[in-house]
Formats: sequence, C-alpha cells, structure tokens
Amino acid sequence: MQVINELESEVRSYCRCWPVTFTRASGHTLYDSKGNEYLDFFAGAGALNYGHNDPEMKRKLVEYLMEDGIVHSLDMATVAKETFLNTFNEVILKPRQMSYKMMFPGPTGTNAVEAALKLARKVTGRGRVISFTNAFHGMTLGSLSVSGNATKRKGAGVMIGSGVPMPYDGYLGDKVDTIEYLDRFLTDSGSGMDAPAAIITETVQAEGGLRAASTGWLQRLQELCHRHGILHIVDDIQAGCGRTGTFFSFEDAGIKPDIVCLSKSLSGFGLPLALVLIRPELDVWNPGEHNGTFRGHNPAFVTATEALRRWETPELAGQIEAKAATVDTALRAMANEYPELKAQVRGRGLVKGLALRNPKIAPKVREAAFERNLILETSGPRGEVVKLLPPLTIDPDALERGLEIIEESLLAVLDSRVPARASA
Amino acid sequence: MQVINELESEVRSYCRCWPVTFTRASGHTLYDSKGNEYLDFFAGAGALNYGHNDPEMKRKLVEYLMEDGIVHSLDMATVAKETFLNTFNEVILKPRQMSYKMMFPGPTGTNAVEAALKLARKVTGRGRVISFTNAFHGMTLGSLSVSGNATKRKGAGVMIGSGVPMPYDGYLGDKVDTIEYLDRFLTDSGSGMDAPAAIITETVQAEGGLRAASTGWLQRLQELCHRHGILHIVDDIQAGCGRTGTFFSFEDAGIKPDIVCLSKSLSGFGLPLALVLIRPELDVWNPGEHNGTFRGHNPAFVTATEALRRWETPELAGQIEAKAATVDTALRAMANEYPELKAQVRGRGLVKGLALRNPKIAPKVREAAFERNLILETSGPRGEVVKLLPPLTIDPDALERGLEIIEESLLAVLDSRVPARASA
Amino acid sequence: MQVINELESEVRSYCRCWPVTFTRASGHTLYDSKGNEYLDFFAGAGALNYGHNDPEMKRKLVEYLMEDGIVHSLDMATVAKETFLNTFNEVILKPRQMSYKMMFPGPTGTNAVEAALKLARKVTGRGRVISFTNAFHGMTLGSLSVSGNATKRKGAGVMIGSGVPMPYDGYLGDKVDTIEYLDRFLTDSGSGMDAPAAIITETVQAEGGLRAASTGWLQRLQELCHRHGILHIVDDIQAGCGRTGTFFSFEDAGIKPDIVCLSKSLSGFGLPLALVLIRPELDVWNPGEHNGTFRGHNPAFVTATEALRRWETPELAGQIEAKAATVDTALRAMANEYPELKAQVRGRGLVKGLALRNPKIAPKVREAAFERNLILETSGPRGEVVKLLPPLTIDPDALERGLEIIEESLLAVLDSRVPARASA
Amino acid sequence: MQVINELESEVRSYCRCWPVTFTRASGHTLYDSKGNEYLDFFAGAGALNYGHNDPEMKRKLVEYLMEDGIVHSLDMATVAKETFLNTFNEVILKPRQMSYKMMFPGPTGTNAVEAALKLARKVTGRGRVISFTNAFHGMTLGSLSVSGNATKRKGAGVMIGSGVPMPYDGYLGDKVDTIEYLDRFLTDSGSGMDAPAAIITETVQAEGGLRAASTGWLQRLQELCHRHGILHIVDDIQAGCGRTGTFFSFEDAGIKPDIVCLSKSLSGFGLPLALVLIRPELDVWNPGEHNGTFRGHNPAFVTATEALRRWETPELAGQIEAKAATVDTALRAMANEYPELKAQVRGRGLVKGLALRNPKIAPKVREAAFERNLILETSGPRGEVVKLLPPLTIDPDALERGLEIIEESLLAVLDSRVPARASA
Repeated sequence: MQVINELESEVRSYCRCWPVTFTRASGHTLYDSKGNEYLDFFAGAGALNYGHNDPEMKRKLVEYLMEDGIVHSLDMATVAKETFLNTFNEVILKPRQMSYKMMFPGPTGTNAVEAALKLARKVTGRGRVISFTNAFHGMTLGSLSVSGNATKRKGAGVMIGSGVPMPYDGYLGDKVDTIEYLDRFLTDSGSGMDAPAAIITETVQAEGGLRAASTGWLQRLQELCHRHGILHIVDDIQAGCGRTGTFFSFEDAGIKPDIVCLSKSLSGFGLPLALVLIRPELDVWNPGEHNGTFRGHNPAFVTATEALRRWETPELAGQIEAKAATVDTALRAMANEYPELKAQVRGRGLVKGLALRNPKIAPKVREAAFERNLILETSGPRGEVVKLLPPLTIDPDALERGLEIIEESLLAVLDSRVPARASA
Repeated sequence: MQVINELESEVRSYCRCWPVTFTRASGHTLYDSKGNEYLDFFAGAGALNYGHNDPEMKRKLVEYLMEDGIVHSLDMATVAKETFLNTFNEVILKPRQMSYKMMFPGPTGTNAVEAALKLARKVTGRGRVISFTNAFHGMTLGSLSVSGNATKRKGAGVMIGSGVPMPYDGYLGDKVDTIEYLDRFLTDSGSGMDAPAAIITETVQAEGGLRAASTGWLQRLQELCHRHGILHIVDDIQAGCGRTGTFFSFEDAGIKPDIVCLSKSLSGFGLPLALVLIRPELDVWNPGEHNGTFRGHNPAFVTATEALRRWETPELAGQIEAKAATVDTALRAMANEYPELKAQVRGRGLVKGLALRNPKIAPKVREAAFERNLILETSGPRGEVVKLLPPLTIDPDALERGLEIIEESLLAVLDSRVPARASA
Repeated sequence: MQVINELESEVRSYCRCWPVTFTRASGHTLYDSKGNEYLDFFAGAGALNYGHNDPEMKRKLVEYLMEDGIVHSLDMATVAKETFLNTFNEVILKPRQMSYKMMFPGPTGTNAVEAALKLARKVTGRGRVISFTNAFHGMTLGSLSVSGNATKRKGAGVMIGSGVPMPYDGYLGDKVDTIEYLDRFLTDSGSGMDAPAAIITETVQAEGGLRAASTGWLQRLQELCHRHGILHIVDDIQAGCGRTGTFFSFEDAGIKPDIVCLSKSLSGFGLPLALVLIRPELDVWNPGEHNGTFRGHNPAFVTATEALRRWETPELAGQIEAKAATVDTALRAMANEYPELKAQVRGRGLVKGLALRNPKIAPKVREAAFERNLILETSGPRGEVVKLLPPLTIDPDALERGLEIIEESLLAVLDSRVPARASA
Repeated sequence: MQVINELESEVRSYCRCWPVTFTRASGHTLYDSKGNEYLDFFAGAGALNYGHNDPEMKRKLVEYLMEDGIVHSLDMATVAKETFLNTFNEVILKPRQMSYKMMFPGPTGTNAVEAALKLARKVTGRGRVISFTNAFHGMTLGSLSVSGNATKRKGAGVMIGSGVPMPYDGYLGDKVDTIEYLDRFLTDSGSGMDAPAAIITETVQAEGGLRAASTGWLQRLQELCHRHGILHIVDDIQAGCGRTGTFFSFEDAGIKPDIVCLSKSLSGFGLPLALVLIRPELDVWNPGEHNGTFRGHNPAFVTATEALRRWETPELAGQIEAKAATVDTALRAMANEYPELKAQVRGRGLVKGLALRNPKIAPKVREAAFERNLILETSGPRGEVVKLLPPLTIDPDALERGLEIIEESLLAVLDSRVPARASA
C-alpha cells in the first residue's frame, strides 16, 4: 500500500475502505497479497455481475489474444464487433421485440450518457434535460449536469445549469404523485421549466440510495414523455445487464425507451465497454459526430459475446430471482430484528440494501464486514445505505454466508454503541 | 460489413474509410477477413505506438489472465497497479527530475481532460479555461468546451461557453507573436477575458492539422502561466508516449506543466487506460471527488508496465529520431516534387503530414493509399492534411514502403485530375 | 395610428389592444385624440397607483423645472435626492421599524431586479437563484432567468440556466405544501438543487395570473431562507407602493426581506424610478459596482417625495381597504352569477381579477370593456385572467361604474357565444 | 451630504468624486447648495449633450405637463409618441437615406442593448455575440456579457459566457490588423469561435478609454459582418446624438448597421429614454416579446422632439466641429508641453481626452479640476484617461476656460509630485 499512498492522487477512494493489496480473484472471491480470501458483495460496483474471471469468458479472451485477434481498432469493422452486434440483436433485442441501432462511445458509462444527451439535443433542438433527485449518471461535465449529488456537482467547478432536477418516485412521500407534479410543470407555460430535450432516468438509483421506481411510475413517465414530445433516456448502466432479474431493468414495466445506456457488466469480464441503444428513427448522427479512441474495444466484444449467451435461456433470470428473494427475506428480517436501526429495505432484484436512519452506522457496518472478510459498499447522499451487490452468479451458500456476516456486522456496530450510551 | 451497416449507428466513421472487416493484427500489419494484408500508418490514431499485439506485452497479459490476476477493481489497491506506479515513477518521472501524483480517471483521453479541468477549477476557484485554435481535447461536454472544431462543438447541443479560444503558435502568420497577444488580453483588465483557471495545450495539434508549437513558444507559454497565476495543462494524449521522439512531447522545451493528461498509447497494447499527472501541491482532491467504474484497469497496467520498460534505455528514442528523419525527408521531397499541391510539411517526430492547399485532395490520397493496402488518415479542420502515424516500432523497410505508397497515391490523385481538366 | 403602424416595431403591444391615440389624462380618466373619455382600470400596469397627473405632484414637478432644479445628475448628491431619502426613511421605514440602505439602479423594475441578483450573488458567493412558477421579474437577461413565462424566456435566445423554478403557494393544489417541498430539495444533499444565493418572490403574482401567497406561506418562506442561509428578495415592484393596502405588500405577513425591489408607482407620477432596499449588513457593494446613466432621476424624486406624504396618515390605506372590499364583493358576485365561466376570484387588495377556465374569454372581455370605454388588462400564462388594477385613488363612483362595465362585458361575451352554441 | 452617507448604498460613486449637494443647473453650469458655480465638462456622462435645462425644451415640457398631457402610457399610442416617430423619421432617417423600424425598450441604455441582443439571437438562431476589448454596453446580465471591464464582469456573480471578446481597432498595436484577425477566427472552422449572432460595436469606446475606431476599420467590420452573415449592432448610446459631430457616430464611415442602440442624450433634457433602430427586414418581434413598464416615456418624447429640431440645419454640426478642433488643439498642446505625462490624445468630436501613462494621475487631475470648479471625469480600464465631455452647446468662452482649468490642474498635479521626487 505504501506505493499507492506515495504516488497515487488523493482522489483514490476504495483503497481507503479496504486497505489491502489485491492480487487474484475468481467468481465471488478476492485474494490479497497475504493470501487472505474475501467474499465479494460489491462486484466492481456492478461491473462484475458474472463474478471475477469467469472461466469460459477467460478462455475465449485468451484464445482471441493468442491468435493475434485485433485488439484496438476504433470503429473499424472487425469480426469481434460483428459477432457482438449479431449476438446482441439475436439474444437480447429480437426476443424482446426491440429494434435499436447500436452506438459504441468511449468505453465508460459516462461517455455513453454524454453521447445520449448530445443525441437527444440534436434530435429535438432543445438544450435542457430533466433528471431526478438523487440521480447519478457520471462525472464528466454533461453527465454531472444531470446528477444530484451536491459534492460531485460542486466538483464541476462551473455552474452546470442545463439539467433540471425533478422529484423521483416517492421523493415527496406517498401522498404526492411526482409524475403529476412533473406534468404540471411541463403543461403550464408559465412554470419556468423550459421544454426539455429528454428525461433521463435510472429505474433503480443505485448510487443515490437504492431507491427503485415502481412499474407504474415508469409506465406513466414514458406516457408523459410521449405526450410532451420529450425523449426518454434510460441509464441502465448499473441496473441493467441482469442486475434486477431481467436483462434490461425496465422489462417488467414493458416500456421501450428512446435511448438506453449500457456499460459496467456489458463486457461480462470487467473490461471497459459501453453501448448506446438508439431507436432507429433517432439515429441522426453524422459519421464521427461523437467518437473516442477506445470505442469498440475488441477484447470486451469477445467476452461480452460470451456473456450474452447466458441470456439465451431463462435459467440465469430464474437464479437471480431466487437469490433476490433470499436477500430480501434476510434484509427484512434484520430490519425487524433491530428496530433501533429504523432500517428500510430498498432496491430491486440483486441490487438491494438497508437504508439506516443514522448516517453514521452504514460506514461502520462496512468496516465491520471487512474485518469479517466481506467486501460491501455504502451508497446514498450521506452514505447511509448498506448496499448489497453480489455477483448474480454467486453460490447460494456464499450468499447466505455474506448475509450472515452482514447481520454480525450490524450487531457488532450496535453493540459497540452500548458503552457510548452507557457512559453518557 | 452488412451487419455493421444494419445494426451499428450512423455515427460510425472509420469503417466507412476502410470498408473491410479486420480480423488479426501484428506489429505494423493488419489482416482482413479475406486474408488481405495492410500496412498500418494509422496506429489506432496514436493508441498503438508499439504496434499491434506486441509479443512480450501479450505474453505478460495472457499470463496475468491465466493466473486469475484481478481484472476489475476500480481504485482498490492491486499488485498490477502498484507495479505500474513504481515503474512509471522509476522509469519516467525520476530520470526526468519530475515529481507528480498519479490519478487514474475513466480509461479514455476525454475522461482525463475532464478530470484535469475540474481540478484546475477547484485549485483556482475560477471557471474559464483558455484553449487554442484547432485544439482537440475530447467529445464529452467539458472537453468539447476547450476544443476548436465547429462541427464537434455544435454536437454539444448546448452553448459551451466556459472555454475561450486563443491563437496557437503561428495561427496569425509569422508576424504576430501569439503569446504577446494572449498576454495583452490577460494583462488588460478591460479586455473582457475573465481570469482563467488554466490554459490547456497540445504541443502538436494532431487532430487539428498537425501544427507543432515551437520550443520557444511553449517555454514562453509556461512563463506566462506562472506570471498570471494560471495552471498549465498539457494534453499529451496523442503527442505523448514517445510519438514525438521523447516520452513526453514537451521534454525538448524543458517545461514542467502543472497537470499532464496521458492515454492512447499508455497501455502499449491498445487497452483503455488514462492517467492524469498532478503537481503534488495541486493534488487537493477529496477522496472519490472524481471517479469512474473502469478507472485503474488492471490488464492495461500489466501491458503498460511492460511498455514503460522500452524507455529504460535511449534505444527507442534513437530509433524514433531516425525514422522521423526518414519521414521528414520523404515528405519534403514530395512537397518539392509536386509544387501544384502547395503542400506544407507539418508535425514533429513521428506525427507528421502534408497539408494540402486544396481540401479535396487528402481524402482522395487516403482512398488511393487504401487501394494500395496502406491505412492512412487525414486531419485538420477541413480534412486537408495527409497524416502519417506509423507505429514507432515499424520496420525501416515497411516505413519506406509506406512512404512510397503515399507518393504513388499522390501521383494517382494528381493524374486522375488531368482528364477532368482536359475534358473541361 | 398610421405613423405607429409604419414606424414603430412589431414589438408594440398595448396599442394593439386599445387602438386609439391618447392625448391627455387626469386621475382615473384617459382622453383620446377624438375627445373620447376612458375609465382606467389598468393604471399603467401598476405605475399609476395615484392616478394620472396628480395635481399636487404636478405642481411640485413644474415648480422644480421652472426653478431649473437639476434634472439629470447620475448619482451625484442633489437636494431632490436627499429630500427623497429622508422622506422615505421617516415616512416609510422608521414607522415600520425597518432599517435599509437605499440603492438607485437604472430607473426600471428589471434594473432593480438585476441589481438585487448581483448583490445576492456577491454576498453569498453562489450563482443559483430560486424563483417561483409563474413569476415575472423583467425582460433583461438576469431577470428573465428568474421569470416563468415560456415565451418570454425563449426570447432570451440563450439558455438561461441560473434560475431554478419551484412551486409557488398553491401551485400543486391544496394537498401539497410547497414550502415543505422546497425544504426537501434544499435539505437533501442529493437533490440536484445547488445551494442558491437567494429566493426571489412576489407576494402577489400580478403578471403570472394574480395568484397571492398566503401570509403563513410568506412567513415560512422567510424562516426557510434564514435556516438555509439563503437571501430573501421580495420583488415588490407591482404589488408594493400601496397596491395591496399597505405600502409594502408583505407588511401583513410581518416579514423583513433581505432585499426589496421597488419601481412602478414609486415616483407616483409615472416617471421612471427604481429603488433597491438592502439590509445594512448586506450593503457590500464597491462604489460604482452597479450603475446606470439614469439612476437617481431627480424629477421622479420630486414627485415621489410628494407621493410618500400620502402615507403619513392611515387614510389612504383605509380607502384602499374599502375599495378592495367593493371589488371583491363584485367579483365574487359575478363568479357566482355566471357559473358557466368557472371563474375564480384571485389577488389581494386592489390587484384583483377573475381567472376564467376558458382562456379565450378574458381577451374578449377586455375588448368588450374597451368598446364600453373601460381600459382593462388580462394576465396569466395564457391570458386567462381579467385583471383589475384601478388607481388606488379612484372615486368610489367610478369604481362602481367600472365594475358594472366589466359585468356588462362578461354578459356581452357570454351572449355572443349563444348563437355559436345554438348553431352547433 | 450626511443623509446620503447614512441612507444611500455604498454603491454610490459620483457623489464621492464631487462631494457637494447640487441644486440647480443651466446650460453648462451647475450650482451647489452653497451657491457655488461649476463648469460642466461631464454632461451627465453624455446624457446632456444640449446642456442642462435647455429653455425651449423646458417650455415644451412644462406646457405638456400643464395641459395634462399623458405622462405614462407604456406602449399605447400617444400624440407625443407619434410626433416623435414622425420627427425622427423626417429629420434624422430620411435625409440620411436610412430606413429603420423604431422600438422603445425600457428607458435606459442597457435595456436597449438587451433588446438588441435578444433580437439578433432570434433572427439568427445563434447564441454567441462578439464584442470588443474594452467595450462597455451596460450593467444588466446580457449587456455585461458583452462588456470588457473585469470588475464589472465579476459583479455578475455568474459566469457570463455568451459574449466573446475580440481585439478592437488598434488593440494589438499598429502592425496587427484586428479585422483580419477576427476574419481568421470566423473563417476557420477549427478556430473554436462558434458562429455568432452579432457583433456589437462602439465607434468610440467612451468608458473603455476613449479609443476611436477608424473609418476604414468600421467599413471593413461591416463588410465582414455581411460576408459571414452576422448582424452588426452599433451601440451609439454615448457616441451618438451628435457627440462626434454628426447625429450618428458612424455617418462618416458611411455604414448602415443592422441594429442601432440610442439613449443618453436622445431625450435632450436628461429624461430617461431609449430607442432601438431595426432594419425593417429584421423586425421579427412578436407583440410584447420584449417590454417594460416605462417604455415610451412621453415627457421624454416631448423634449426629444424639440432636441431633434436642432438637427434640421447643419448649424449644430458645424459648431461641434469647431469646438472639437479647439479641444483637440488644446489637448495636443498639453501633451507636447508636458512630455513627462506620456500623454496620448484620444477620442473623436467632442468626446476626447488625454490618456496618461501613469494611472494614478488622472484621478488627481479630476480632483484638482474640481477644486477649480470644473466637473470632469476619468475613464479607461484603470481610470487612466482624463475625459472631456462638455455639452455640445457650450459657449466657446466656457470651453476655453475649461481647457485652461485642465491645464492648470495638470500642472498642479505635476508640481505636487516634485517634492515627492525631491524627497526621494
């Protein structure tokens, strides 16, 4: 770690939570340089839905490299890309009656969001984009303008006024229908809300505190977009690629967004890749109007193609559903067992967590879990949510073990508070 | 190609210039699906300075994968990262008496530029950033605001007013000293130029038409930045990593920028990686204030570490210098031989080209070269420059062969114009 | 009118509603060039609260001019300005236990708002300003950014992103407490609402459709501003100077804004004048940091001083209250009498009106009233409100007559619809 | 003065330079409350070209008031407005073969500039506007974005990025042709200069330090605007209304701007009035798209109509020319006489001044002049210019006297420096 502390910028963060040097990883297990083993409930912040170093993907990747398969090619045509395009179309789009053109921006989520915003503005000729409270879409300037976190926004260093925040599902409590509210602003020509190019939405706000929109809310949001001539962008970067139980997180809602952003687990192997799906009528880009040196990263196409094959049968979806139920039951039990936490179970599918009233507790739970060799993250505007993001492919036993460690960690944190209260 | 045409977005561009499907690549050679062989004078737009699939890097990468080395880890500490940090420090920074903290943003050039701009704004509390005419720094909103190309800027879809363009070295002809001009604006409190956070510079404007700044201009620019309390950012994404003959493109000028952005050939193998070098006193980031899912991409660290070893001796630099001389001589000869082209030799080191008065010619040269199995790009605001970007490691023979093809292509384009004039 | 049509820009508007050439005016009466007489329920859009050409103000003004009193002096010290400052302090501020520094921006309302916004940003170092749905604060760029009307905002021709609209009192119906809503956005660090410099408010949205905020809402708004460290600006340009029954429109609410903007009826005689009241601790301007050629317009100081004397006794306030009651009773009677209008009585004091469900009716009522020699305006985002703005000093008889004409006009419009319905 | 110091905001400025209370004024003479007389070389910062309280204008104004002529009418049709429109057309436009529609924005210069910018953006659909170094166009947000002064710009409190500064005539010394420079930026699609809606220009930069553009520069600027499809706005607020010897300051150059802004001396009597002249084809405003309560101020129309009559014969222009020559000769003599000042004579017509190398001297000259009962201002980014702005109608004797006082004041300041140097 010394070399990290000396040479890497202060901006580093996760290495501060888990201050060991990792060497190898496989499935749901990480190993450090001292030979310790860790159970991974973090999964690369959603980039490792299929676990670490999936053997089949690895085999394909190494094969490709050994054959001198072309690695870097910008957006030239390659066999690896053609295979990916075909597979995505056959395995994902066609069975869902979807028709989209595919665009490969720079291979990170925020590049996909930037491309989506640019396209929406080009199509509509409008500049504003509506985003939601507690949204997170990335750290480059365009993506920040539609993100909610005050600290991250401030990091921009300039006023980022093209995004307009509106209340997400449930933001104002149960009595207020936030779609109705948004509709009021859009319908009233005196509201001060300029007609927007697009509304950008996460179906589950993973970074924002694991709030999940309801199916009905998503449907009414799409209807509202259609009625007002606004493009609907779904940022499915963290919630997509199976995380909620279906490949796209919005399949249950039955909606068809105008633009969809994918990244994180798209390559399946943790390799950088991003994809923007565009309704064919909206594909009005000029050649090269948006580009990037690492767009169309071939090794990632190779592993992604293999990852997509997991969606050819309903098996994976069934497994996710079962594991999600396990997590849900366990979290609800903990929330009931320890009412002093005032815990709320949040999330959907295998992106779930416990929102704790006192924002100081979740970070301590993360620490206590790490002491017990469980890698676990927090989220939410004040880091108040214990966030579970296990690989979708985790063994059921390991899942149970992780949940037990979480309960132990909660208890440890609660116990450690007793003396504090006693001494008061 | 059919699948590409049907499924990939209209934004695709290079696959239109070279409409074949590539399969394999090695060194300076690309192969298509029909078994044709191409000589690569494009080198991944500067991402493949060491050629395709360097055997030693490939060996290290495959070894790492086979051992289940950790692939994806955000900014957790890993052995691969520590080794890279150490190697970069020992091989690159220390011998050059440089001291920088290293930051890994999302693994693309534009993410590095966005991070640099944010940091400069945080350090200075100011919002404006000065960039130069014909600059290119990337396609996300922050990077676009400091880029010059009108079409790309327009793609933003919103007014991008935080960047201010100033004339690059030579922009106003020989009589006007553009540093003096910039100084006038900065010194005069009535100029309308708000005090900027930073000045961002390419030492060679690769996309902007291969204009190279002189050593003296770069030195005076740094002096001006110091005098006015402005941070100096060098975007060395395309010109760095040896392209101009030294590892950093600004070594000859003897300057030490406050912030340096690297990407493209940093990983050596075409894998996505980006790095921001920060003067230690300026490393005021809070943990996680800028982040990204694919920051700190371990496979890229593995190949990058191997690539850096090429800089342990002066051998590579010497080879680049020799090849650059070969290119220079050949281009000057062509410019003299065909005065009707009104060609100007531009660039520095192994990023060189011929700027042709008539903007319609360069694209035709590119086509003619492709017919002769040479991959070659154009650049400049109107695509008027024939741009040579061979791998630094190209065989001298192949380099000669490529230069011959360029001359043949020029001739073919010139000849094809004769009938046109005759028939008129 | 011909010269107007030929030479004046298409931007002209009121001369299209009332297409006659006016010559003279006195009290509540206007005269046209053909000798016709009109009853004025428009009062210069609130600039003529004391009626046209008040004899005593006129006498003072003519006297001043005849003595060669200095007319134009920027912000030099003049006897006319000193007398105004003293009178405003003695008659208005001191009796209300208020302490403000006075600033004279350019002599229009929008200049006052621009100055207030600049000062709030200077004091807080923040850029955003919260305004309310259906707000109207002026037509220059800064004021537009906090105004709600879509057409007016679009006129800016650039994205005006520094203002953020929030729901005004009652905007989301009775069930939603809009202060609670605003508080939620300000308290939640993930809301995407950057900490604002100020909140700017009208107590009655005169242009926005005559919506009046409740006393409790205004008090809670001030409390919220204090709690979050946000400056509270009240734009009292149209609702102030007695229009709601007290000199400031917020006196009943008992609040003390940080900054207050006045203009319109401040000079009493229709002469351009604007005033910004600033809590003494916030008066951090540097000399000349905001200025304007016509700031401190002396003829307006002369008439304004005379106008302020009307506030030395409670008499005027009593008269306004009585007339407001007359208007209120009459409008409620009309709303009840003609339920087919689905009319809602809106406003406060002597800025009142009837909001009609069908937006096509109010303009017809205005026309019908003009045919009956009554000058009457509409307001609201779709012009759906019949707006009554009689001089505060109108004769009770004339007030009754005007109300009768309004009822006649309503009837005429309703009758004219009968055949339309019959023929359907 | 005590009441001013206690009650008026710190923003007050001119009353600090001339700390006496003024009471009356007539022609070129001001009187204070102690009966002292001052010679006015400031003329209301250009708002009093015809001197104070011109007897004929005053007679017309008082007559109008006594007859209950309508004072406040927004943009309703009035006899006063019709008469002004006709007179402006007959006396000013027609004899100059000009055809413009007239728009009355709020009655201050900055409101006129804001209207012009909005219209240019509407006509072209573009957002950027080019302005010049050391430009001054007003203090509201839109006008500030095209002004050069750093302190004033900073006062905006938000980044004002829609304006782009370009070098004014002579800004880069004699060797650089600034029109050629601007042309380079506009022609080069890689320059980073987005295509602008308009270029806004002062022919003489009165606030910016009395720099006057040459006739040839203005002509080439117009040609460049035409060639690039950019609207040309001339802000003739301070330089117009006869200040440079002709009614419009650009008559000698023979150009016809697309939009012209007038204010300051337009009313002739120091009453607030502003006018935007619009080429008829560009008059695409919708009714009311820009408005303001005090637009179309009738008392100002009355005096303005009388002021325009002074332009029916060439007499006034002849007098200005003669007086300008007197001023010029005197200033050049002073510059020669006192070479230690390193003084440069600047300006055109009767807006002239001495730019002094040492920026501390001009304010002292202003003070010394005031001790000698001469009212005189400074201008320029550092206040380094002694600025002469006498009424155009000043008596030749008074003009001579004022020039003598200036020389005496210069001498007094220079003498007072002697001991300083001696003691050093």
